[in-house]
Amino acid sequence: MLPTGHLMEARRMLSGYAVPLTPDGKSSLTPPPPWHYSGDCIAVEYWADPAAVAALLPIGLTPDEESEGRTFFWFLDWQFTGSNDEHTDPARYQYREAFILVEARLEGRPVNFCPFIFVDNDAAIARGWIQGYPKKLGSIYQTRSFSAPSAAACPLEPGSRFGASVSSHGERLATARIELREKVTDPAKVFNRPTTIRRYFPSLSGSQQGKPAVDELTLSLMDNLTFSDFWTGSAELSIPYVEGEDMDALAPREVGRGFRFGMSYSVSDLPVLKNYLA
Amino acid sequence: MLPTGHLMEARRMLSGYAVPLTPDGKSSLTPPPPWHYSGDCIAVEYWADPAAVAALLPIGLTPDEESEGRTFFWFLDWQFTGSNDEHTDPARYQYREAFILVEARLEGRPVNFCPFIFVDNDAAIARGWIQGYPKKLGSIYQTRSFSAPSAAACPLEPGSRFGASVSSHGERLATARIELREKVTDPAKVFNRPTTIRRYFPSLSGSQQGKPAVDELTLSLMDNLTFSDFWTGSAELSIPYVEGEDMDALAPREVGRGFRFGMSYSVSDLPVLKNYLA
Amino acid sequence: MLPTGHLMEARRMLSGYAVPLTPDGKSSLTPPPPWHYSGDCIAVEYWADPAAVAALLPIGLTPDEESEGRTFFWFLDWQFTGSNDEHTDPARYQYREAFILVEARLEGRPVNFCPFIFVDNDAAIARGWIQGYPKKLGSIYQTRSFSAPSAAACPLEPGSRFGASVSSHGERLATARIELREKVTDPAKVFNRPTTIRRYFPSLSGSQQGKPAVDELTLSLMDNLTFSDFWTGSAELSIPYVEGEDMDALAPREVGRGFRFGMSYSVSDLPVLKNYLA
Amino acid sequence: MLPTGHLMEARRMLSGYAVPLTPDGKSSLTPPPPWHYSGDCIAVEYWADPAAVAALLPIGLTPDEESEGRTFFWFLDWQFTGSNDEHTDPARYQYREAFILVEARLEGRPVNFCPFIFVDNDAAIARGWIQGYPKKLGSIYQTRSFSAPSAAACPLEPGSRFGASVSSHGERLATARIELREKVTDPAKVFNRPTTIRRYFPSLSGSQQGKPAVDELTLSLMDNLTFSDFWTGSAELSIPYVEGEDMDALAPREVGRGFRFGMSYSVSDLPVLKNYLA
Repeated sequence: MLPTGHLMEARRMLSGYAVPLTPDGKSSLTPPPPWHYSGDCIAVEYWADPAAVAALLPIGLTPDEESEGRTFFWFLDWQFTGSNDEHTDPARYQYREAFILVEARLEGRPVNFCPFIFVDNDAAIARGWIQGYPKKLGSIYQTRSFSAPSAAACPLEPGSRFGASVSSHGERLATARIELREKVTDPAKVFNRPTTIRRYFPSLSGSQQGKPAVDELTLSLMDNLTFSDFWTGSAELSIPYVEGEDMDALAPREVGRGFRFGMSYSVSDLPVLKNYLA
Repeated sequence: MLPTGHLMEARRMLSGYAVPLTPDGKSSLTPPPPWHYSGDCIAVEYWADPAAVAALLPIGLTPDEESEGRTFFWFLDWQFTGSNDEHTDPARYQYREAFILVEARLEGRPVNFCPFIFVDNDAAIARGWIQGYPKKLGSIYQTRSFSAPSAAACPLEPGSRFGASVSSHGERLATARIELREKVTDPAKVFNRPTTIRRYFPSLSGSQQGKPAVDELTLSLMDNLTFSDFWTGSAELSIPYVEGEDMDALAPREVGRGFRFGMSYSVSDLPVLKNYLA
Repeated sequence: MLPTGHLMEARRMLSGYAVPLTPDGKSSLTPPPPWHYSGDCIAVEYWADPAAVAALLPIGLTPDEESEGRTFFWFLDWQFTGSNDEHTDPARYQYREAFILVEARLEGRPVNFCPFIFVDNDAAIARGWIQGYPKKLGSIYQTRSFSAPSAAACPLEPGSRFGASVSSHGERLATARIELREKVTDPAKVFNRPTTIRRYFPSLSGSQQGKPAVDELTLSLMDNLTFSDFWTGSAELSIPYVEGEDMDALAPREVGRGFRFGMSYSVSDLPVLKNYLA
Repeated sequence: MLPTGHLMEARRMLSGYAVPLTPDGKSSLTPPPPWHYSGDCIAVEYWADPAAVAALLPIGLTPDEESEGRTFFWFLDWQFTGSNDEHTDPARYQYREAFILVEARLEGRPVNFCPFIFVDNDAAIARGWIQGYPKKLGSIYQTRSFSAPSAAACPLEPGSRFGASVSSHGERLATARIELREKVTDPAKVFNRPTTIRRYFPSLSGSQQGKPAVDELTLSLMDNLTFSDFWTGSAELSIPYVEGEDMDALAPREVGRGFRFGMSYSVSDLPVLKNYLA
């Protein structure tokens, strides 16, 4: 039986930005911000049913009538790092992501909102929920562009064809193809809306079960957002019905342009736009 | 351009217990409680460094000096269902889990605390964080017992040998073996401590980054906790050092008995024992 | 520069039943036979297009006209062991399987043939190709039956509902549901056909590319085949079209009975019925 | 009961380069050659125990005494395509690979031999066994270099640090880090040995169990082998002991240079150097 004093001395501060909290903080699912990201992206512009888009918006966002249901489906190969060279541990921190951004208005200003998002990594799920991205686990792939030439290289040039897909629990949720046509000189003409997300944490205790403990509309603030090698071309996209999901409510009625580009940014803060519990 | 009225009518209530919230609620990561579980379990009793156990306890829990670092490492094959026959969609809801329970005291009463836990399913991660289980993604396996006889059947009888393991990001975090010796007539003599957990949700916004938005000590309340086919025997356990984790702080100094049994319970509520933000 | 003699002494016999071969034989993908299996099975009886069944049969098998396209879709949770307690290393050797067996005739005798099969484990792929099961990698799940009671236990009794699914590369290939009704006293009335398979290993060298190096019709010989807890009931099955696959050629026209049972057998030999290269 | 004639007409030729063979050949695990590959590679030069290297060589290869156990550990992110734009289906065909190449002599000429190799894709396993690469299933990651700048971009410039790892069945088999220092003008000075491999297919039938059905020393012939962006720098590598594997026999005694580069080639043929069954 160890004396109390010895054990009380052992009780140092627990640390870690996310759970689990430990004395050395090494088990924490994700390090604290700033979070840095560089990646390759495939994005498909399309139009969904405007009523379905509207039906997904939380209070405080209104439908963007001019958009007529315009939506983007994104696929990303992401490299993450924090402050400790996390990018050199790709088994733990490299990941893939797929999400939808619908167009909306926040007090009249044009914004995007993210109603669906999938990643294949637990640290990414944690960072997502902390911000307001409703991340679920999925399996995501996109064709890559390699420098050594062959029929498999898929170089960044007109005619190159890329595919991308996201699946979850063994069901294909979305499949896309794009064919490059030309470079885009001003990516800001394509992507220029800030992204809003809903930070939400449920309750389970007694009478609180019906109300979340956290419910905020937040701004996905991207420091130093940079695009590179920005190409556009034609696209195809399908979002089939899957039992156990309802993302097919945003199935494409019409598909527009495809885009393939590099993107990077950092995350250091999360402005709260609305607190639904206040 | 659709008239505003049409779009405003489309804005029905969003529903879902967990994110993402949608009109039909079908994309929600997990259905609301009650949550029902039946499974097969392998548990290894062992003694860790009491100072390491003490160092993992949150405020409000004190070391259990009589335990001298007694700890249990659990491996579980779980079947989950809610209110809609979720158990008939095993690709989505069946999962495996591994965790550690350390012994502690809450205002003098004997309890367990869960500092580390891994699952291989996103709905399970969500239910975990909502309660206070600090779930991370892992790969878990345990030997099963099958009814059709062969050298591979591993029947529930003396001499049968079971293995179990948990890995994360390609690193083996724990490996166990047990060999059955005899049935246990009173499981309550083995497992009789309620489990406390820390429900914790980080913040990211400005000055709040250092403080979580939710931080509570909760009780993992198990309705109708039932054990079946409760066997005990000898055990082996290893918890190696892994870069990027610190669960090896609870590596075994001495290993005790192994247990293999069925277990079931339901979850309908989550008593809050302490609110660290109050 | 080490002397030749020292290095020549180091060159011991390489060992291992399957690749890779090493001095100690420990990296071999699978140990040599005998191979022992115990598992839980869900099987769905159905009728496919008899012409599609016939089109899948290799030379030497003829359509079984009386079967009228009768086919079984199987889902199995398998525990494997060899001669070294492999069953205690479930991360390496436990696996899941899904396959189709079509009915055919071999020189007038009723047999089954396996045209499609998926597993989630590399040792199982190896043992499959060695025998003649055309295994590909997939993700397979089936509802389990647990002993500790709850809404999630799915006991072996009338009314219990089981689900099963197989997916590959993120595409759902088949989904099944069964509902138990009654026990079956004589499983041999259900499963009484030996299974034939095609052992096939391609060539790549020069003029041989069009011809395999190994091409045999073999018998999947099962020693001590045993059934346990054999239940039957109603069933549902879907085999959708998936790009990159053509198993949907055997999509059900009509679904019959479902079965849920334990099964075990061992493999020690592989009779060759026909050598297509002879 | 369908008339025999109808069913016999349905029996078209089965097609497919690898199993399973079907009328339309769409389920075949891999299309036939030519096979095209472009990818990113990290390779670490090191010295293993020359006796351990020698012990892994098949008959016909002799130790390269001048090499003194020199070995390369490779990590590759591969894009594969055949003749049908397979690269646009990355979920099915994109994959990752890790392998070891040891130096040896074939009738006095310097060659490499591949004793260990892991991939995360079934089509890649099939192409591997068909050639002679003893592929097993694993989980492989390497740090990537992205064009959009951030702390996570890992650009191809001096000081950039890359990590790579391979795991199998939840056990870490090898971990590497490299730090770039300078470009290499002539990659052929680094990689100039042809690779030999052992094409091996076991038998299971009766008396043949001890002898494989196929056993050849083959040449991994690479058409149009091209390197790009060839960098070198310092390196670290560990290959720990793992139960169930014996690759740690080639654990590094000394680590040399690290390399990071693009590579591409095609496969259309497989010269047979020795037939061990002849």
